[in-house]
Amino acid sequence: MFFDRIRQGNEAGKVEYIKVTEALGRVTALPVFARLSSPNYNASAMDGIAVRAEVTYSASERNPVRLKKQQDYIPVDTGDPIFEPYTAVIMIEDVVEIDEDQVEIIQAAAPWQHIRPIGEDIVAKEMILSAKHRIRPIDIGALLSGGITKIAVYQKPKVGIMPTGSEIIEPEETMEIGKIIESNSRIFEGLVIELGGIPLRYKPVPDDYEALKEQILQAVAVNDILIINAGSSAGSEDFTVKLIRELGEVLVHGIATKPGKPTILGFIQEKPVLGIPGYPVSAYFVFDTFAKPLIHYYLGQQLPGKPKAKAVLSKRIISSLKHREYIQVKLGRVEDQLIATPLNRGAGVTMSLVRADGVLIIPQNSEGVEAGEAVEVELLKPIEEIHRTLVSIGSHDLIMDLIANHMHDLEGGYDLSSAHVGSLGGIMAIKRGEAHLAPIHLLDEKTGQYNISFIQRYLPAVDMKLIKGVKRIQGFIVQKGNPKKIKDFTDLQREDIQFVNRQRGAGTRILVDYELNRRSIDSETISGYDREMTTHMAVAAAVASGTAHVGIGVLSAAQALGLDFIAIGEEDYDFVIPSKYLNTEMAKTFIQVLQSMEFQKELIALGGYRFEDAGKIIDIL
Amino acid sequence: MFFDRIRQGNEAGKVEYIKVTEALGRVTALPVFARLSSPNYNASAMDGIAVRAEVTYSASERNPVRLKKQQDYIPVDTGDPIFEPYTAVIMIEDVVEIDEDQVEIIQAAAPWQHIRPIGEDIVAKEMILSAKHRIRPIDIGALLSGGITKIAVYQKPKVGIMPTGSEIIEPEETMEIGKIIESNSRIFEGLVIELGGIPLRYKPVPDDYEALKEQILQAVAVNDILIINAGSSAGSEDFTVKLIRELGEVLVHGIATKPGKPTILGFIQEKPVLGIPGYPVSAYFVFDTFAKPLIHYYLGQQLPGKPKAKAVLSKRIISSLKHREYIQVKLGRVEDQLIATPLNRGAGVTMSLVRADGVLIIPQNSEGVEAGEAVEVELLKPIEEIHRTLVSIGSHDLIMDLIANHMHDLEGGYDLSSAHVGSLGGIMAIKRGEAHLAPIHLLDEKTGQYNISFIQRYLPAVDMKLIKGVKRIQGFIVQKGNPKKIKDFTDLQREDIQFVNRQRGAGTRILVDYELNRRSIDSETISGYDREMTTHMAVAAAVASGTAHVGIGVLSAAQALGLDFIAIGEEDYDFVIPSKYLNTEMAKTFIQVLQSMEFQKELIALGGYRFEDAGKIIDIL
Repeated sequence: MFFDRIRQGNEAGKVEYIKVTEALGRVTALPVFARLSSPNYNASAMDGIAVRAEVTYSASERNPVRLKKQQDYIPVDTGDPIFEPYTAVIMIEDVVEIDEDQVEIIQAAAPWQHIRPIGEDIVAKEMILSAKHRIRPIDIGALLSGGITKIAVYQKPKVGIMPTGSEIIEPEETMEIGKIIESNSRIFEGLVIELGGIPLRYKPVPDDYEALKEQILQAVAVNDILIINAGSSAGSEDFTVKLIRELGEVLVHGIATKPGKPTILGFIQEKPVLGIPGYPVSAYFVFDTFAKPLIHYYLGQQLPGKPKAKAVLSKRIISSLKHREYIQVKLGRVEDQLIATPLNRGAGVTMSLVRADGVLIIPQNSEGVEAGEAVEVELLKPIEEIHRTLVSIGSHDLIMDLIANHMHDLEGGYDLSSAHVGSLGGIMAIKRGEAHLAPIHLLDEKTGQYNISFIQRYLPAVDMKLIKGVKRIQGFIVQKGNPKKIKDFTDLQREDIQFVNRQRGAGTRILVDYELNRRSIDSETISGYDREMTTHMAVAAAVASGTAHVGIGVLSAAQALGLDFIAIGEEDYDFVIPSKYLNTEMAKTFIQVLQSMEFQKELIALGGYRFEDAGKIIDIL
Repeated sequence: MFFDRIRQGNEAGKVEYIKVTEALGRVTALPVFARLSSPNYNASAMDGIAVRAEVTYSASERNPVRLKKQQDYIPVDTGDPIFEPYTAVIMIEDVVEIDEDQVEIIQAAAPWQHIRPIGEDIVAKEMILSAKHRIRPIDIGALLSGGITKIAVYQKPKVGIMPTGSEIIEPEETMEIGKIIESNSRIFEGLVIELGGIPLRYKPVPDDYEALKEQILQAVAVNDILIINAGSSAGSEDFTVKLIRELGEVLVHGIATKPGKPTILGFIQEKPVLGIPGYPVSAYFVFDTFAKPLIHYYLGQQLPGKPKAKAVLSKRIISSLKHREYIQVKLGRVEDQLIATPLNRGAGVTMSLVRADGVLIIPQNSEGVEAGEAVEVELLKPIEEIHRTLVSIGSHDLIMDLIANHMHDLEGGYDLSSAHVGSLGGIMAIKRGEAHLAPIHLLDEKTGQYNISFIQRYLPAVDMKLIKGVKRIQGFIVQKGNPKKIKDFTDLQREDIQFVNRQRGAGTRILVDYELNRRSIDSETISGYDREMTTHMAVAAAVASGTAHVGIGVLSAAQALGLDFIAIGEEDYDFVIPSKYLNTEMAKTFIQVLQSMEFQKELIALGGYRFEDAGKIIDIL
């Protein structure tokens, strides 16, 4: 309905005439027909001599023919025009010079040989480009060759981008509690540029009805499309919808997608106005669904189909019948199968968009997808890039980021995709053939040994290898100065202590439970035992923000957020890998990074790691 | 060897620090770690009230709990910070207001519900982007959210582009015989911009040793890479190679590819210098092979793999063992098979690059590929676009360009790919399943009828339909004013007349042979009978350029080039289409265009066409 209205109002965008030499990426508004032929004359295609073909017909090795300059031939260079009476060109290599005015040839020349006839490339009046064609570098070459210097193109649509909300600040401003750095408008700016529009970003408008009204009126006057990005509060959304209604009309308020529900579509002075919700992931998908087709339309372009691929889902997804849901996924090719692992579904998690390789769409009438089911995903990256990705599923450690960076940096440019599901989750992923390797740190309570016995228990051990990783120190992460004076696990039972835990299946969780068991501490007595985080950093962040007093994790996480750390002990963080992947280029690069000086220097800088055996391959029997 | 030398010299490109808000499309030179967490505080994810979770635990529908403001709860909007002692948020929809200071709830709140914990999106110190990452709009959002305002990126490499040759002129200059509009440098400019470099184009340098030397030295001083584009003459190539040798060193002179042989690779002052041949198709492939990887290298990027697809070759290709050959192809999907039709292989034919959908590479040690063989092609367009292409193989007429333009312009944005192999060639292509439709104009000498009897003879007629096209006038195309006074076919035998013919299998050729037969004229007596052109326009161009005095073709071709025309008769230019394609959206759009006012107006403007039946479907029995 919204789009129909736009189609009625405009026959695509406005047209302007520009220089061909400045037309890269622009879209033709009319077909372009050649003004000149190219070449514009019959031209020699070789260095040599132009001859009258008929005088050469009797030439052979036994019977060379002698030709006279000006009469039978003239010398020509490539590109020289060929005039009557000359009708063929002989390459210089096939010509024997006798003297200044005579040459000999030993082969007949066919008429028109080595002559580029007029119009060989382009014939005057032929169509060089159709209308609605996006101009590539090669098109510029053809247009110029066809004698065209100016062309009609669609004007780039001007897209006003107006961030609103009293809580948002500009990147340079000082961060305070309750403030959020405004970033959606910058994402929109980039997307508009990539799509071929001109973004005009406004300074954030505070939640003030009159101020917003004035700004909207100004923006509608100068832009073709206006995007109002609501602050994250419902109040700011209310202002937007009221103002569009007051100044024009609202066609849609609220759509059945997740994320993206509080979308507003309307018109002011017959210009489309989009109210886009504030959470970045919502903002991204709503832009993609509504602003992108609009910009394409103004540029006379069809919305290109999104590249898709079949994948197998590695984790169950539950969705609601109430809405269509966009789920971002990491993709990796394991064996010949593309594996899709859902990322964090929070509408506020920009990083999920940064990390995503694809998008899985769950239709409105579906309750979700089971793990192992085949799904179709829209690709956000070229499939070749996804094929160059080493898929790691398992326990989390900061070093995975560092390894990823080095792998990307080295020859081959491999990516490392790491999903954090805990050590046991990683082993199960290997078992299901969904990952190339799994980082694990699993303590065998009986032997006190790490990792190997778990591989023997859960996997076909003979087909597996263990790549030694790092020894890392685990300990209590507590607030700076340890105000609660936490020393041991028994302190976790204290009434004044809020604990923050890791999720089931995480090696750290197994460690916690092991230590509690050893001390016969009932987990029910620990406040916060059920609050589960999936990474060390998330545990540290909970402590840093004061929502917990203590959690268990690695030194580097504590240090990164300026927290204190009380060591519990050292553990082995290693990688289980099916033998068949060990000799792939990707795995070799992974091992090369583990053993590299650069990486080990970074470990020293982080602190809390030892790496004597890093990259060593252990057989599992 | 050339690339090894560059890798030794430079550790990728130079680094500079720029604002994140201006970083779109740039490439990170270092990994980027978050400075701030996002959110930077525990934030309400909803509008509602923040509560101490423990005071809600007993709430139920039977036992509502009453809460006191400031003591048990405070009102919050989405994004507001949540401080101690509050540990959960209840949505406003679930809150019953009693009075200004009291509310009632009927459900317990789980601790931390509807609270976005500090670092939910980004945790301080975590890696946002790895090194050598090309920055997308969403990355800018994440960087800003992580408190990053400046980042280290690779400088855009400066690429000097120097066209040379005394015969080339700038687009604004007046065209003269022997002059060529310089266009390669403009193609290079566009490619450099698309790849992320900065092009610096020089004015064309004439073939003057000293002038060229001076310009090269200047250009090497300010650019990272220098491209010298040889004029089309061998002389200008000689200058280039001599100068690179004099000022630096030549590593490679001549490569075993076609097109592209006379390529020069060298260094001056340790900067790479490329001598690229003058023919546009050669220039394009040499740029792609050598300049593109260089620019990628300076930007720290891996050369992306080219998307490929399997296709079936529709025409035999003969290649030489001496070189690797790049052959441009049109692609179309017929049934479920991708069909590749080779385009004009001339190195001077820019339009083949404009029209190409893909490139087929014939390796150095191959003699070619047979028709019907499966080949792998590199795609130049998204495969979705190729799937939207209606594949026409058969006779040529100017109206195919017009139809193509309208189809592209209409809803659906379909493309029309038309290969010109003559009417009989088109029928054979339909038979082999390589085209959706074939334009034909075949005169049955016995019945005097057009087209239908040929379909009955060569194709399974019951499975075919005929879409009526246009009636068009064929005639003699002669020079302006008809200086040779050509009136009839008997004139073609005159000694002072050069004829230009169409290729075997073309409907026009059949017409020529029919008319000659009727008059018992021996083709041997016609000078130029063996000179075959594949389009009407090429015939007209031969006449316009004076290399022939007469040819046979349609009125529109004669008019386009300002030639005179002596009508011979009217013929039916129709389209044979397998019935199964008739109801595809693409074919419907094709027929819609044939029947449209806009198209028929253009026919009137061209002259020489009648279109009473255009778009009518004829059954063939």
